[in-house]
Amino acid sequence: MDYSKLIDDFSNFTGRSTVVSISIFAAVLCLCILIGHLFEEHRWVNESITAILIGGIVGAIILFSSKGVNSHILRFDEELFFIYLLPPIIFNAGFQVKKKQFFHNFRTIMSFGVLGVFISFSIISVGCCWLYPKVGFSGLNLQDYLALGTIFSSTDTICTLQVLSQEETPRLYSLVFGEGVVNDATSVVLYNAIKKIDVSSLEGRTVLKVLGDFLYLFTTSTLLGVATGLLTAYGLKALYFGRHSTDREIALMALMAYLSYMLAELLQLSGILTVFFCGIVMSHYAWHNVTENSRITTRNIFAAMSFMAETIIFLYVGMDALDIDKWKKSETRLRTVFGIYGVTLFLILLGRAAFVFPLSVMSNYFSSPSERQLITFKHQVVIWWAGLMRGAVSIALAYNQFTFSGVTWDPIHATIVTSTIVVVLFSTLVFGFLTRPLITMMLPHRHQSETGNHHGSDNGSPSKDDMIFPFLTLDNDPSSSGLLQAKQSLSMLLERPVHTIHVHWRKFDDAYMRPVFGGPGLRIEEG
Amino acid sequence: MDYSKLIDDFSNFTGRSTVVSISIFAAVLCLCILIGHLFEEHRWVNESITAILIGGIVGAIILFSSKGVNSHILRFDEELFFIYLLPPIIFNAGFQVKKKQFFHNFRTIMSFGVLGVFISFSIISVGCCWLYPKVGFSGLNLQDYLALGTIFSSTDTICTLQVLSQEETPRLYSLVFGEGVVNDATSVVLYNAIKKIDVSSLEGRTVLKVLGDFLYLFTTSTLLGVATGLLTAYGLKALYFGRHSTDREIALMALMAYLSYMLAELLQLSGILTVFFCGIVMSHYAWHNVTENSRITTRNIFAAMSFMAETIIFLYVGMDALDIDKWKKSETRLRTVFGIYGVTLFLILLGRAAFVFPLSVMSNYFSSPSERQLITFKHQVVIWWAGLMRGAVSIALAYNQFTFSGVTWDPIHATIVTSTIVVVLFSTLVFGFLTRPLITMMLPHRHQSETGNHHGSDNGSPSKDDMIFPFLTLDNDPSSSGLLQAKQSLSMLLERPVHTIHVHWRKFDDAYMRPVFGGPGLRIEEG
Repeated sequence: MDYSKLIDDFSNFTGRSTVVSISIFAAVLCLCILIGHLFEEHRWVNESITAILIGGIVGAIILFSSKGVNSHILRFDEELFFIYLLPPIIFNAGFQVKKKQFFHNFRTIMSFGVLGVFISFSIISVGCCWLYPKVGFSGLNLQDYLALGTIFSSTDTICTLQVLSQEETPRLYSLVFGEGVVNDATSVVLYNAIKKIDVSSLEGRTVLKVLGDFLYLFTTSTLLGVATGLLTAYGLKALYFGRHSTDREIALMALMAYLSYMLAELLQLSGILTVFFCGIVMSHYAWHNVTENSRITTRNIFAAMSFMAETIIFLYVGMDALDIDKWKKSETRLRTVFGIYGVTLFLILLGRAAFVFPLSVMSNYFSSPSERQLITFKHQVVIWWAGLMRGAVSIALAYNQFTFSGVTWDPIHATIVTSTIVVVLFSTLVFGFLTRPLITMMLPHRHQSETGNHHGSDNGSPSKDDMIFPFLTLDNDPSSSGLLQAKQSLSMLLERPVHTIHVHWRKFDDAYMRPVFGGPGLRIEEG
Repeated sequence: MDYSKLIDDFSNFTGRSTVVSISIFAAVLCLCILIGHLFEEHRWVNESITAILIGGIVGAIILFSSKGVNSHILRFDEELFFIYLLPPIIFNAGFQVKKKQFFHNFRTIMSFGVLGVFISFSIISVGCCWLYPKVGFSGLNLQDYLALGTIFSSTDTICTLQVLSQEETPRLYSLVFGEGVVNDATSVVLYNAIKKIDVSSLEGRTVLKVLGDFLYLFTTSTLLGVATGLLTAYGLKALYFGRHSTDREIALMALMAYLSYMLAELLQLSGILTVFFCGIVMSHYAWHNVTENSRITTRNIFAAMSFMAETIIFLYVGMDALDIDKWKKSETRLRTVFGIYGVTLFLILLGRAAFVFPLSVMSNYFSSPSERQLITFKHQVVIWWAGLMRGAVSIALAYNQFTFSGVTWDPIHATIVTSTIVVVLFSTLVFGFLTRPLITMMLPHRHQSETGNHHGSDNGSPSKDDMIFPFLTLDNDPSSSGLLQAKQSLSMLLERPVHTIHVHWRKFDDAYMRPVFGGPGLRIEEG
C-alpha cells in the first residue's frame, strides 16, 4: 500500500488528504461490514471488536507505510464524533425503542441511568484522587479528578445489546438499553456541569448548583426534543405531502431530527437527550403521517446510518490507539502506567457494582407485587456486566478535557489520554469477548438462539422487523392483527392493573394528541 | 436573528462556527422544502429558483446581522461540492435512469454531450477571446479563455427536467437527461485536460493530445464504474446477506458507490462518469440481490439524498451571490461589466444553438426510417433551451480556475468570478422562469399534467414510483405483469428491428451476466 505515493500522485480539484482519507475510510468500512458478516456466527466475536481490531490493523499499516508521519489524518476527532456520529446513533435509538417497555420501566431506567452515574462518578472520582498518587502518579487538579469520574462513568452497552435477545428477556433488554442511553446523556450533562465549576471556591452549595444545573438541562432538553418531534409531526400532517413526495418527507424528518440536536447544542442543552426524545415522538406521531415507502425507508435508513456511525467510531478508536505521538509524549514510568490501568479498571468494576445491585434491590422492593417481573440476581449480574465496557463517549470526553483539539503537550495529560484509550480497548476487547459466554451461562434457557437476532440492527435497538411488521400487517389487514393485538393488550392490562398513569396517558393520547399530530387510527401495542 | 450573539453565547465541545452554520443550513433547508412544496403548483416557479431566492435572502440576513463579517461561513466551497454534493446527484441519476431509453438513444446523447461540448467550448473560447477586449476587458491569458470555454459549456438541466414529463415525451426526456449527465462529465474532463496544457508551446499536436487524454479518461472512468458496480453485485450475491441484514446491504451499496467516485478522483479519472455508470450497473444487477426492504430504501434514500444535495447547491449559489468581498475586489467599470455579462450570455445562446440544431438534423438523418421517432423542430428548441441554464459546475470550475480556495486578490479574476455568478443566476432565474411556459407552448398536447410528475424526484431522474412499481409488481405477481411487459417488449422489437446490438447484449446479459451478478429471473422491460 504505497500510501505516500498515492498522495503525491494526486493533483485534482479536491483536497488531497480529504480524498485519500475518505477513500481509505470507505474501503475499510466496507471491509468491516464484510468481515463482520462472515464472523457473525462466531461465539466470541462481535462487530465492535471486529471494527476495533480492523481499525488497529489499518492504523498500523498507515503508520508504517507513511513512516509515522500520517497517523494524524485519522486521529479521533471529538467534533466529528459529537456533530456527525453521535446524533444518528441516539436518534435511531429513540426512533426504534419499544416505547411501551421503555416507559413501563421508566423509574428503574432513570434510577440506573441518573442516580447510578452519580454514584459511580463519586466512587471513581474519590478513588482516583486517593489511589493515583499511591501508584506514583500525581499532577492532576481537583477538576481533573472530577472529570475523570464522569469520563469513566459513561458506559457502552452496544456489545451486550448485540447478544441479548429482546424477545426472550424483554425487560432485561429494555433496562440495559434504556440505561445505556440515559447514561450517555447523564455523563455528558454532568461533565458539562463540572467544567463550569469554579474549583477554587468549592463548598456545599456547589453540589446543589451542579444538581440544579443537571435537572434544568435534563428537563429543558427533553422538552425541546418533544417539541421538535411534535412540530415535525404536525408539519407533515398539516401540509400533507401527497403520495409522490417521498423525498421531501424523508428529508424533512432527517433534517428536523438533526436540527433538534444542533439547536440543543446551540442553546447549551444536552443534544443527546433532545434527539432521543425527538426520535421517540417522531416514531410515535410523525412516522404515521408519511407514505408507506417513506416509513420503510426511514426505519431502514436510520438504522443503517446508526450502524455505520457505530462502526466508524470503533474503527476510529482502533486507529487512534496507534497515534504514536501521544504515546511518546507520556513520560510516566511503565510500572506507574500499569498501576493507573489497574486502578481505573478496578474502580469501574466497583463503581458499577455499587449502584447496580442496591438499586436493583430497591427497584424490586418498590415494584408492585402484581408485576412479578423482579430483577433476579442473574439479571443483575448481566446488567452490571453490560455497563463495564467503556466506549467512544469516554474517549471524546477525555480528549475534550485533556487535549487541545487532539494534541496535548503536557506529559501528565498525555498519560491520562493514553490510559483512557487502553481502558476503552481493554474493556471492549476483554470484557466484550466474555459477554456472549457470560450471557449464555447466566440465561441458559436461551437455547443459543442469539445468533439469529443481532444482525438486524446492531446498534442496540430492537430488530427492525418486529417493529415494521406489526405496522405493515396492520396497514394491510387491520381487522385480524388489530384484534389480536388488542387481546394481548387486554391480557397484559389484567396482569398489571397498577399502571394508571399509562392508562391516563393513553386516553389523553387518543383523545387529544393523535388527532392533531397523527398516529394509527386503531390503538395497537407498539411494543 | 441575532446571529453574532448566538455565536458568542455558544461555548460547548463542538466548533462554534460549525454548529451555527449547520443549524442555519438545516433550518433553511427545511424552509426550502416547505416553500418548494407550497409553490409546487405554481406555473413560473420551480425548486431551483426557490432555493436560489431563499439562499439569497438568508445570505442577506446573515450579511446584515453580522455586519459583513460572517458572510464567509457560507461561501461556496468547491471541495464540499465535488466531494460531498455532486456524487449523490450523479449516482442517483445513474441509479434511476431508464436504461432502455438511455441506451437506445446512446448515439444521439453522446453526440450532444461530447461533440456538443467541444463545439460550444470552441465558440465560447474564441468568442470571449475576441469580444471581451472589445467591451474593454483584458488581462486574461490564453489558458483562462480556454477555461472560460469549458466553464460556460457545462449546463444545468434540472429546471427543464422538473417540467418535462417522462411519460408523454420519453425520448425527449431521455435526450435532455442523458445529455445533462454526459455534458457535466465532459466539461469537467475537458477542463482538467486544459489545465494540463502548456500554453506556451501550443501547436496542432496539443489538440490531439487533449482529445487523446479525453478519450482515455472517458473509457477508463466508465470501466472503473462498471467494474465497481459488478464487484458490489457479485459481493452481495455471493455473501448473501440474509433476510435481516438490511443495514449492511444498504451501507455496502452506498459505500461502494461513493468509493467508486473517490477511487476515480484518486486515480485522476472522472468521478462523475465512474459513479454514473456504477449507478447504472448497480440498479441493473446489485439491486436485485438485496432484500425487498433494502430495495425500497435504496431507491428512496438515493433520490432523497440527491434532492437534498441539489437544494443545498442552489442555496449555496444564492448565498454566495452576496459574498461582498468578491464584489469589492472587482474594480472593473460598470459598463464593461455589463458588456461581459451580455457577451457571455450571447455566446452561451449561440454556442448551444450551433450544435443542437445541426446535430439533431444529423441524428434524424442517420436514424433508421423504422424508428419514426425523429427529433422535431419543437423538440430541438426544447433541447436547446434545456441547456441554457448554467449551474453549480460552472461556479465550481470558475472558483477552481480563478480563486485560491475561494479567495482571489486579483481584480480581473474577481470580475470573472462575479460574472460567472451573475450569468448563473440570470440564466437560472430568467431562463428558468420561462421554461415551464415555453414547454407548455411547445408541447401543447401535454394537457397541463406536468405538475403531478415532478415532485417524485426533482433531480432529473424518472419519478421513483414508475421505477419501483414494475419491479414490485413483478415480485408479487410475476405471471401477469411479466406477460404484459413481454408483450410490450415484443411489439417494440417488431417496430424497431434494427437494434441488433441490443438484442445481442440482452442475450449475453441473460446467458452470462445475470447468473453471475444477479437480476430478475424473468426478462422484463425495465424502462
